Amino acid sequence: MAPLADLYQVSMAYGHWRAGRHRCPAAAELFFRRPPFRGSFALGAGLAEGLRGLRAFRFSAADVAYLRSVLPSTTDDAFFDYLATLDASEVTVTAIPEGSVVFPRVPFLQVKGPLLVVQLLETTLLCLVNYASLVATNAARFRLLAGPDMKLMEMGLRRAQGPDGALSASKYSYIGGFDCTSNILAGKLYGIPVRGTIAHSFVMSFRCLEEVQPRELLPLAGGDPVDLADLAVSWLQRVCDLLQTPPSKASQGELAAFVSYAVTFPCDFQGLLDTYCVRRSGLPNFCAVALALHQLGYQAIGVRLDSGDLAQQSKEIRKVFRACEAHFQVPWFGTIPIAVSNDISEQSLEQFRREVRNLLAQLGCHPGDASRAEMSPGLSLGSEINMIGIGTNLVTCPLQPSLGCVYKLVEVNGSPCLKLTEDEEKMTIPGMKAIYRLYDAAGHPFMDLMALEEEPSPSAGQELGIRVLGRLEETTKVIPTTVEPLHRTYFRDGQVCEPLPSVPEVRTHAQVSLNLLNPVHRRLHEPQPYPVAVTERLHRLFLELRQGSH
Amino acid sequence: MAPLADLYQVSMAYGHWRAGRHRCPAAAELFFRRPPFRGSFALGAGLAEGLRGLRAFRFSAADVAYLRSVLPSTTDDAFFDYLATLDASEVTVTAIPEGSVVFPRVPFLQVKGPLLVVQLLETTLLCLVNYASLVATNAARFRLLAGPDMKLMEMGLRRAQGPDGALSASKYSYIGGFDCTSNILAGKLYGIPVRGTIAHSFVMSFRCLEEVQPRELLPLAGGDPVDLADLAVSWLQRVCDLLQTPPSKASQGELAAFVSYAVTFPCDFQGLLDTYCVRRSGLPNFCAVALALHQLGYQAIGVRLDSGDLAQQSKEIRKVFRACEAHFQVPWFGTIPIAVSNDISEQSLEQFRREVRNLLAQLGCHPGDASRAEMSPGLSLGSEINMIGIGTNLVTCPLQPSLGCVYKLVEVNGSPCLKLTEDEEKMTIPGMKAIYRLYDAAGHPFMDLMALEEEPSPSAGQELGIRVLGRLEETTKVIPTTVEPLHRTYFRDGQVCEPLPSVPEVRTHAQVSLNLLNPVHRRLHEPQPYPVAVTERLHRLFLELRQGSH
Repeated sequence: MAPLADLYQVSMAYGHWRAGRHRCPAAAELFFRRPPFRGSFALGAGLAEGLRGLRAFRFSAADVAYLRSVLPSTTDDAFFDYLATLDASEVTVTAIPEGSVVFPRVPFLQVKGPLLVVQLLETTLLCLVNYASLVATNAARFRLLAGPDMKLMEMGLRRAQGPDGALSASKYSYIGGFDCTSNILAGKLYGIPVRGTIAHSFVMSFRCLEEVQPRELLPLAGGDPVDLADLAVSWLQRVCDLLQTPPSKASQGELAAFVSYAVTFPCDFQGLLDTYCVRRSGLPNFCAVALALHQLGYQAIGVRLDSGDLAQQSKEIRKVFRACEAHFQVPWFGTIPIAVSNDISEQSLEQFRREVRNLLAQLGCHPGDASRAEMSPGLSLGSEINMIGIGTNLVTCPLQPSLGCVYKLVEVNGSPCLKLTEDEEKMTIPGMKAIYRLYDAAGHPFMDLMALEEEPSPSAGQELGIRVLGRLEETTKVIPTTVEPLHRTYFRDGQVCEPLPSVPEVRTHAQVSLNLLNPVHRRLHEPQPYPVAVTERLHRLFLELRQGSH
Repeated sequence: MAPLADLYQVSMAYGHWRAGRHRCPAAAELFFRRPPFRGSFALGAGLAEGLRGLRAFRFSAADVAYLRSVLPSTTDDAFFDYLATLDASEVTVTAIPEGSVVFPRVPFLQVKGPLLVVQLLETTLLCLVNYASLVATNAARFRLLAGPDMKLMEMGLRRAQGPDGALSASKYSYIGGFDCTSNILAGKLYGIPVRGTIAHSFVMSFRCLEEVQPRELLPLAGGDPVDLADLAVSWLQRVCDLLQTPPSKASQGELAAFVSYAVTFPCDFQGLLDTYCVRRSGLPNFCAVALALHQLGYQAIGVRLDSGDLAQQSKEIRKVFRACEAHFQVPWFGTIPIAVSNDISEQSLEQFRREVRNLLAQLGCHPGDASRAEMSPGLSLGSEINMIGIGTNLVTCPLQPSLGCVYKLVEVNGSPCLKLTEDEEKMTIPGMKAIYRLYDAAGHPFMDLMALEEEPSPSAGQELGIRVLGRLEETTKVIPTTVEPLHRTYFRDGQVCEPLPSVPEVRTHAQVSLNLLNPVHRRLHEPQPYPVAVTERLHRLFLELRQGSH
């Protein structure tokens, strides 16, 4: 594939080449300016793919021919010859490990190398890091809301920006804390666990029991095959008696679909309850088939609900399962996992949490307990819902569909650069930097500190005079208990030079990084902004450059 | 590439196969339920890629091996052998031509074939059509707001869902009415015009004029080379005198960058005005270099503004250009194209339109004229802004980041299917259908009508009794002046059987289709919903099936 680039980057490359500046040493940084989703943090992701992009960075003969056709006809031929020789072999990349919590203005990637190549890499890196970090952050927020025990499944394949967008969504949702995906290709390519349940179209494709073929199932413990359709019909009568709902209201097509699925997957039978009426059709039909299966020694693995008031219905479904458990003496029936889907958003999860709170209150819990339960991220959403499938609101990130990372030159030819605009937020911080994360005595990171590369590393336990972004006019004193240098060198001499963790390792690292955060920064609504600071020397450099440009 | 599929689809496929139903004739429809962005319409797009996906539909040996590893171990081996033989050769696809205006509930794709394959194609088709149609619709809205003469450039490469998401964004924005893209690869692959301007990083990479190399330029008409840097410095003095701004406030690095770019691209010189202060640096530096170039016979091609109040600043810039034109007697200077970018959204364009309205009011236009000017889509945004670059808000569609197309079975084994849920909107309309667009005497489409496939086609000029969705309880009479059958057969016997238009042809068709719309449906805010109806026969079928399921 041709390098990802915007045309102006190639025009500028020609400008540099004509000026003989293309091999000037340069450095650029990749960072975002505002944390996404009105939180305080993002998860940095996309590093491994960015490094692969670097390794593959090259203009093919066809790319060069195309560029020749779109650049002005006065462009020097020798420039195109030069383009054909380019690669990233002289580039060095340092970065914060993938899956780490990252903060606004703190570069999570630094690129050094010849000016022309450093500038050409801008779009490749932004394109590979931006969405990856955005969706990983979104997934992490869902995980924080749902608590550690809830199963979270990504199912956004139909809503992503085409096949590759969907693959990125599956991979980075997993990294952000999801458990599995519905996307087979993501499972195949990245080893992410895949899960799937029965769909409405399967249910709708049946009209009556006569269509079920084969209908016989061998009991798990052996014996003669049994007609599962007949058995389910007799169970339906008993279930309907118990639930006081007329069997005639239970869809025959739905029952046929469930029986057919159960004969095919007797150890993995699941029901989708809402193709027709949940209470009078989906639920009795599922219970009938699950009880018939139970009679043959098999255990149903779950149900899914895809419309309506999910929290309310899941309570009613749980009640029915418990009633069946008691009435038919089937010990596992009350705890059949309930999965929900249908446009689940952060707001939905918050609503589920409120339900739990109300439930606790009804159970006579102390209001403080209930309120604490609601406030604390990581709360289980109650026993009614065991798995949540999230598609659109995970992969398209509607609360903020783009992270807005930027890639800015910070040094050329040994001179630091500064972008000073009318827009204070759009200013850059000049110079090649070392980045440190400072931890307090409780083990929480409390500040990220940017220093000039040549400055000595700050020491743990020593007081530092620094300037916090946003209030640069005053010096602040801090004493870190621990100091962690954040960047590692990942790419040098055209090769990845640091072993890259596997996808599950990145996922684990992300949860560790999130857990270290102080709850005041981790909370999703109105978090305390995480302070980012510069050293006094870096601040002086900034002032000098600003002075010089006025 | 493996077929795009969710795991449950393969599980269901196994269910059908085990039941011997995998070759039952079946039909499915692809449609959306609500128009995006609170408008009344969408542009249907992604058909050509969907057809390519069909042609390539096949499970490789590796895909089959992977599926074997994730399906239950009890799965019959012969099923995997069967999967390896599957393709879309028995599938027929009819569709509304790509780029047409499409409405909620009206299928823009119909798929017929063996049940198992029809179901497996669901995700492939949804994934390829959903985002394509969404971003084409978004682009069309920007085009309606900006008017036909404004140049619109797509520049979302960094904000899309990875490289392929970005390519889709470029392609379908172009189809929706954009003029060009910054994305080189999109230019190379789809022949979309590419454009590019100078960027902040180029400007920032210069500190002083000494870095400019080479500095000499040959006058266009011939003669001795001239030091453009010296010439620009002398022009800067004259410009600063005229603008009454001190030359010392103009950044030397920025001037150097402009001179360097002008020497490299003398016929294509553009300025980016806001790396430093627009008024005291960017604008005087640009005018100085442009006037120096003019002295050598060259004409600058434009400026770009990427921060701050774009409407206001572009007015001030235009004023300065006109002042230079008058003072220095350079006839083309007042009309130098001004391009703007920086997070441009529909709201930004609406703000630009309000500015025009105010301007008209100031010029003493009749308030009605001004108000009409503001209301009418297609208004020029005034002479100050000539080109708009849109990235994030185009490609991520933040107003609604997903179209929500669905793919539903409508017939199996000759029997129509109906999904009846508690959620009225989620009901499907059963049976294989023919779709007609009805036009009024003014040539506007006024209704889409769904009929059963076997019904005779409605005739132009004849009264039809139909039922409008949303008020099915009453019969409505309409007399169409023209009746257009909407679907064509695009895929049959494993091949695309209808010549596919080129990307520019689809783009033209989209504008024609939009222009035919009645303004009451076309307007972006609170449009009149476009009526979609069913024939009496289709309505009776729906009632019968609903009856039967209760």
